[in-house]
Amino acid sequence: MIDNATYAQIDRRIEENLDRYIDILARLCAQPSVSAQHLGIEPCAELVATILREEGFEAEIVPSAGNPVVVGRGEGRNPKTLLMYLHYDVQPAEPLELWESPPFELTRRGNRLYARGISDDKGHIAARLAALAAVRDVLGELPCTVKFVIEGEEEIGSPNMQRFVEDHRELLASDACIWEFGGVNVYGDPEMSLGMRGICYVELKVSTANRDAHSGLGGSIFPNAAWRLVQALNTLRDENGRILIDGFYENVRPPSPRDCEYLDRAPDESGVLREMYGLQRYLGAQSGLEWKIQAVFEPTCTVCGLTSGYQGPGSKTVLPAEATAKVDFRLVPDQTPEEVVGKLRAHLDRHGFEDVAITLLAAQRPAKVDPDDPFVQLTIAAARDVYDTEMVVQPIIGGSGPLYPFVSVLGVPVVSAGVGYSDSRAHAPNENVDLDYFVKGIRHTARIIAAFGEQ
Amino acid sequence: MIDNATYAQIDRRIEENLDRYIDILARLCAQPSVSAQHLGIEPCAELVATILREEGFEAEIVPSAGNPVVVGRGEGRNPKTLLMYLHYDVQPAEPLELWESPPFELTRRGNRLYARGISDDKGHIAARLAALAAVRDVLGELPCTVKFVIEGEEEIGSPNMQRFVEDHRELLASDACIWEFGGVNVYGDPEMSLGMRGICYVELKVSTANRDAHSGLGGSIFPNAAWRLVQALNTLRDENGRILIDGFYENVRPPSPRDCEYLDRAPDESGVLREMYGLQRYLGAQSGLEWKIQAVFEPTCTVCGLTSGYQGPGSKTVLPAEATAKVDFRLVPDQTPEEVVGKLRAHLDRHGFEDVAITLLAAQRPAKVDPDDPFVQLTIAAARDVYDTEMVVQPIIGGSGPLYPFVSVLGVPVVSAGVGYSDSRAHAPNENVDLDYFVKGIRHTARIIAAFGEQ
Repeated sequence: MIDNATYAQIDRRIEENLDRYIDILARLCAQPSVSAQHLGIEPCAELVATILREEGFEAEIVPSAGNPVVVGRGEGRNPKTLLMYLHYDVQPAEPLELWESPPFELTRRGNRLYARGISDDKGHIAARLAALAAVRDVLGELPCTVKFVIEGEEEIGSPNMQRFVEDHRELLASDACIWEFGGVNVYGDPEMSLGMRGICYVELKVSTANRDAHSGLGGSIFPNAAWRLVQALNTLRDENGRILIDGFYENVRPPSPRDCEYLDRAPDESGVLREMYGLQRYLGAQSGLEWKIQAVFEPTCTVCGLTSGYQGPGSKTVLPAEATAKVDFRLVPDQTPEEVVGKLRAHLDRHGFEDVAITLLAAQRPAKVDPDDPFVQLTIAAARDVYDTEMVVQPIIGGSGPLYPFVSVLGVPVVSAGVGYSDSRAHAPNENVDLDYFVKGIRHTARIIAAFGEQ
Repeated sequence: MIDNATYAQIDRRIEENLDRYIDILARLCAQPSVSAQHLGIEPCAELVATILREEGFEAEIVPSAGNPVVVGRGEGRNPKTLLMYLHYDVQPAEPLELWESPPFELTRRGNRLYARGISDDKGHIAARLAALAAVRDVLGELPCTVKFVIEGEEEIGSPNMQRFVEDHRELLASDACIWEFGGVNVYGDPEMSLGMRGICYVELKVSTANRDAHSGLGGSIFPNAAWRLVQALNTLRDENGRILIDGFYENVRPPSPRDCEYLDRAPDESGVLREMYGLQRYLGAQSGLEWKIQAVFEPTCTVCGLTSGYQGPGSKTVLPAEATAKVDFRLVPDQTPEEVVGKLRAHLDRHGFEDVAITLLAAQRPAKVDPDDPFVQLTIAAARDVYDTEMVVQPIIGGSGPLYPFVSVLGVPVVSAGVGYSDSRAHAPNENVDLDYFVKGIRHTARIIAAFGEQ
């Protein structure tokens, strides 16, 4: 058991080392690595491997079906292994004119450091290294074995991560994992998510003719692709958001009493969101636990885009030959994207829409971590000391990520801890980290590492 | 009664004058007059007035709420008045690279003359003048009074013609009218339309939030503008094209036995169209009289365009705050655009779609000419002699135009006669007239003028 005096030493060491890890962060940010534009990907992977080696870890660049993955390893006193899932790719910096300093140059203004990727996710790479160094410096060695898996396609949906994990089970074998994000919520309280919804993103396309027709000619006799699409879509969902595909809900696992307990304790953001987005009302419950459950434990069917015929100003009398919709299903445990595509196809066929073509554009399985896992409890306990408040636990969040292979292929509990805060502007211009939250994220991570070695 | 020898003299005179009217046509084509781009509108109106005066007519340029209208007049022996409705504006010439000769320069290749607007509608202006000149030369005077109303906004939907006719009833008062188009169909047979459907073109717009949201955040709780639009549209029409708006059909007048007689005689184009557009099948009847009736005597509700959210390649996980549809209703006698907008609003409100905003983008009333009117019969008889075949009569066509104020405000029968043919390429690159059909159109028009003066 590590005592408070040792944690105080670790905290001091973090402060002493801070400039060194800001320098490392500056080197990472100076190397563009935009996966959507395939900009700087390989050089950034090399840089990450170099930095891992400088920090005393083994590192190799492992090819994947997509961008290379940096895999690192450091032996500890205890063979128990802690995995760090991170990513070195970043979002595009555009629109450039909205940046107040060059996006690929770490710039300090006041208590904040600015650059593209400085929070998402290069700040987390630097913070993990800072935490590991402080723990090692104070304890004389790493208390547990540490592995890194740092991918280069998170910002484009991690299309190859499931396969990569399956293909490298031994290499990545571990006992627990810290996720690529973490930090504090809008109230400044530390927050952790223990699950992510899956995604099944499809394009639906209807083609009814080989060319558009004049609406005066064809209006009452020609099939119309836009009408076909509207009619097909309308069979998928009712006005309350209930999905009408046969058997769609059969694998939906409701939240457990423990999930509901955590949800109930989490802040109610229904009022803040309604105001931020100018909503008249929500689809179902308007606030409270029921609203929180619906927001994350319900699967969704979202029309993300509609395109057909004439879309410019004024009128054009055209009868469209083609129409497409982008449709995003968010999935909850234990649904799978493959299951949803199959049920969608069967549903469309049964309703006479054999002509509506489905193209699968993105797929990720939902995943959840057991909230009662000791590593989760360890992470919550570690946060108390740093943030002086109880961690908010979200049993699952609405978004998606490559959590499933970690939870189900590697079989590890996954927690979040990090340097994010409500004004981080991830994906937006002037992305930044606040130095106070940066240090707190490092301290929290260091406590998790130290306590995990003792557990 | 004009005898055949006189008609033969008129035909000869048309041949003798041909170059003069091709020169007039060349002058008209050399003056761009693109209403959609407001290019050369006023100079073209001036040129048309100048040419009318050179041809011995009075002409004035009368302001309208939009582009100026050229109104002309020539006294005849008989006070009975024949009105020529024409337009001096043309479609844009773009795409320019597909033209084989400069669009605003009359170019002869073989038996064809090429230029933008040479068929639609400057060729008809020149042809009417050529017919009038030949008749006057041979008979010594015009056999009837002739008026011209030549507008400059036909290619943008004649938004001000209804009002212009209402405001100038006396100026335009007449006994019969020849429409701006006419000529032969794909089989080379002369064809006349005696009616046009009306149009009520609206934009439907839904707004559910002040900004787009992440689909992972809002999918199961936020209202989604694309879904609202899909659901609202779906209440408007069933899959067979039947419009579900309450009372929508109450003013629909079915075709008369006489209409059906003409339709039955008209060629059956169901096979040709199905092949041209690559259609699997039509919405209702597949061919024959029932198909012909459905094609033109049924009102329509056509989705001309759909726009919402993300429409680019791949996936973007966005929940759209706005969605719009362009919807074109074609109306049959005795429906009106005002009635349809009112019923649409009531329908949307009754179905809980008060939030779907309607913007009226274009409106024209449907109109029909009595097929038994003596002027219609005169026009059919005049064609026999020129084309050696019976005129095909379409009791109404699927498209729309400003026919209503002529039929209902001026109270005149309206016929078609002209220089169009199946390869005219109106609105497309390499618009042209074929000189044989050009001359036949002039001869037919001359016979109508001469016979009307005698009637």
